[in-house]
Amino acid sequence: MNASLNATPSVETLYLSAPEAAELIRRKGLATCLAGVADYIRQDFGRWTAFDKSARVANHSRDGVIELMPIADDVTYSFKYVNGHPKNTRAGLPTVMAFGVLADVDTGIPKMLSELTLTTALRTAATSVVAARVLARPDSQVMALIGNGAQSEFQALAFHHLVGIQEVRLFDVDRVATAKLVANLRDSSLSVTVCSSTAEALRGADIVTTVTADKTNATILTSDMIAPGMHINAIGGDCPGKTELHADVLIGASVFVEYAPQTRIEGDIQQLPADFPVTELWEVLAGQRPGRVGPEQVTVFDSVGFALEDFSALRFMRDAAAELGLGERISLIPVMANPKDLFGVLHQPARATWPADLRGAMAPAAAH
Amino acid sequence: MNASLNATPSVETLYLSAPEAAELIRRKGLATCLAGVADYIRQDFGRWTAFDKSARVANHSRDGVIELMPIADDVTYSFKYVNGHPKNTRAGLPTVMAFGVLADVDTGIPKMLSELTLTTALRTAATSVVAARVLARPDSQVMALIGNGAQSEFQALAFHHLVGIQEVRLFDVDRVATAKLVANLRDSSLSVTVCSSTAEALRGADIVTTVTADKTNATILTSDMIAPGMHINAIGGDCPGKTELHADVLIGASVFVEYAPQTRIEGDIQQLPADFPVTELWEVLAGQRPGRVGPEQVTVFDSVGFALEDFSALRFMRDAAAELGLGERISLIPVMANPKDLFGVLHQPARATWPADLRGAMAPAAAH
Repeated sequence: MNASLNATPSVETLYLSAPEAAELIRRKGLATCLAGVADYIRQDFGRWTAFDKSARVANHSRDGVIELMPIADDVTYSFKYVNGHPKNTRAGLPTVMAFGVLADVDTGIPKMLSELTLTTALRTAATSVVAARVLARPDSQVMALIGNGAQSEFQALAFHHLVGIQEVRLFDVDRVATAKLVANLRDSSLSVTVCSSTAEALRGADIVTTVTADKTNATILTSDMIAPGMHINAIGGDCPGKTELHADVLIGASVFVEYAPQTRIEGDIQQLPADFPVTELWEVLAGQRPGRVGPEQVTVFDSVGFALEDFSALRFMRDAAAELGLGERISLIPVMANPKDLFGVLHQPARATWPADLRGAMAPAAAH
Repeated sequence: MNASLNATPSVETLYLSAPEAAELIRRKGLATCLAGVADYIRQDFGRWTAFDKSARVANHSRDGVIELMPIADDVTYSFKYVNGHPKNTRAGLPTVMAFGVLADVDTGIPKMLSELTLTTALRTAATSVVAARVLARPDSQVMALIGNGAQSEFQALAFHHLVGIQEVRLFDVDRVATAKLVANLRDSSLSVTVCSSTAEALRGADIVTTVTADKTNATILTSDMIAPGMHINAIGGDCPGKTELHADVLIGASVFVEYAPQTRIEGDIQQLPADFPVTELWEVLAGQRPGRVGPEQVTVFDSVGFALEDFSALRFMRDAAAELGLGERISLIPVMANPKDLFGVLHQPARATWPADLRGAMAPAAAH
């Protein structure tokens, strides 16, 4: 609105497809992207009170859930669409698919539409890192990784590159998933141990990451498996009726969450009374409350995924796409000569040919 | 999930841009599209209890609002993104911009991404028609149209083609907007009268449509203007702090709404106590409650726009796009050879050239 009086702001939307997001990550490097997203998340959590926050809106069905996760500060609005359908893999489909939008708060223009399936894996791992940096023991070197599905490589490599983990101990009820993870980690310098049970994987671990997908109240971790000083990065318990930790594990630990109103509904703490004490991660990052206070303390990051992390991740992808000249401009919003004359859009002269002309609605961003 | 065991469902998304939606409406004809959307809305309101409904999620800012409007039945999920920024027109931008998605409830796949700026104008007018057919006097011929902005042509033509209105009486504080509306109605067979006040416009009107945009508690209609037997189609009072009718107009009428929990927050009835009696439109359409009961009754459709109308409109646009071969397939979701191997997407062989290769992520739908 502050631009030159004669210049009408563009209503074009930058579109970043899944293949382009993959290309972006390849060109910048996964470790660089994970570090970048973690930086943006830490920055945005540091100005927590600047955001208009709400719990996500979920439509539950028999086999899954579809959620919308909006958030805004004074300048930028974002939302993510994301599903969770554990049975999808049986049909050859991903469990989680996502996309999202960044919009301009002043005008409502959707400035960017981006894939978020790959990007969600980055931001979830980056959020785990931001939490682990203040909650795990600084000398942590060994991580148990329970659940070896679509997000496991991102967790393993994020903790390797950004937290200093040197060894991962893997377990999944699906041995094929574990074999895939082992193969995908072959080119990293991580030491990889395949275990035959969760209990075995946890032996000697400094950090435990649970990232399982079953939509049930599972009990992946029980108190007898937990050693003093462990940090538990609990990712998979993230909607009503879907938990991973026995209640006693939570009761015996200091529990940290992203946004308490949402986590009490969706996180592992859904098993506990509404007044069970938790600390919000931003309070630790802002220095208002302590994170880990000693080497024997057991800490749990009961992570469910919060809209602010997607806001940060979308900002990172937008900036990286601009840097690399990736993305295309699309005409999601009609261009109107007179903003009160929407009807006139129907009578704009048809373009020369059909349908090739409409392809012109999409052009490489670099051309603009 | 019921398809052949060997066929992985496609994760491609049909994308219908704003220029393509305009082309669709031109090719089918506006009256046909309005009638089609009205039919879909009536069908979907007729199975009201089959839907998982919620009030929309709104992020309010100084100059406007951005909203997400999700809804689902057992098969299909939809949401709409829509803004409302009355000051946008000063910057040459539309007040309302929108897009939306249809997704598959069983898998979460986003099947269609569509512009909804034009489509929202269609569905709002079509919803007004569905309501007026049961609430206005059957002999209605004259409509006052207060607010001559972006939606006014769609309201005028919908009531002309589908309700039998022969004359429209226009008023807007912005005379340029009225002149635009007059010009746009020139090719219709509507008789058009420009008035110098709301009161003048209402004289002799059977139906009154208010579709103003100011984000204030305005008082566009007062009781002294209302004649027995009028139907008031109140479109513009649609968010907290934005109303058009004096409370006495509501108190003296039978008030019909889309979805009471949302309308009590956003509609003109936000001025009245929470127990002010209203009838939901679907109850009338289902024959459970009466609509208009006599020729002297004053009826008000306090319309705020409900997610189900966008669900219906998206279904119509999807079916019409398929019929006409419009739309393009986009790769919003990554194609994964193994659904548990998201990481593998990063290592799929790069395509031959750059950036033209990624343009291949978008292809005309007809080619598939």
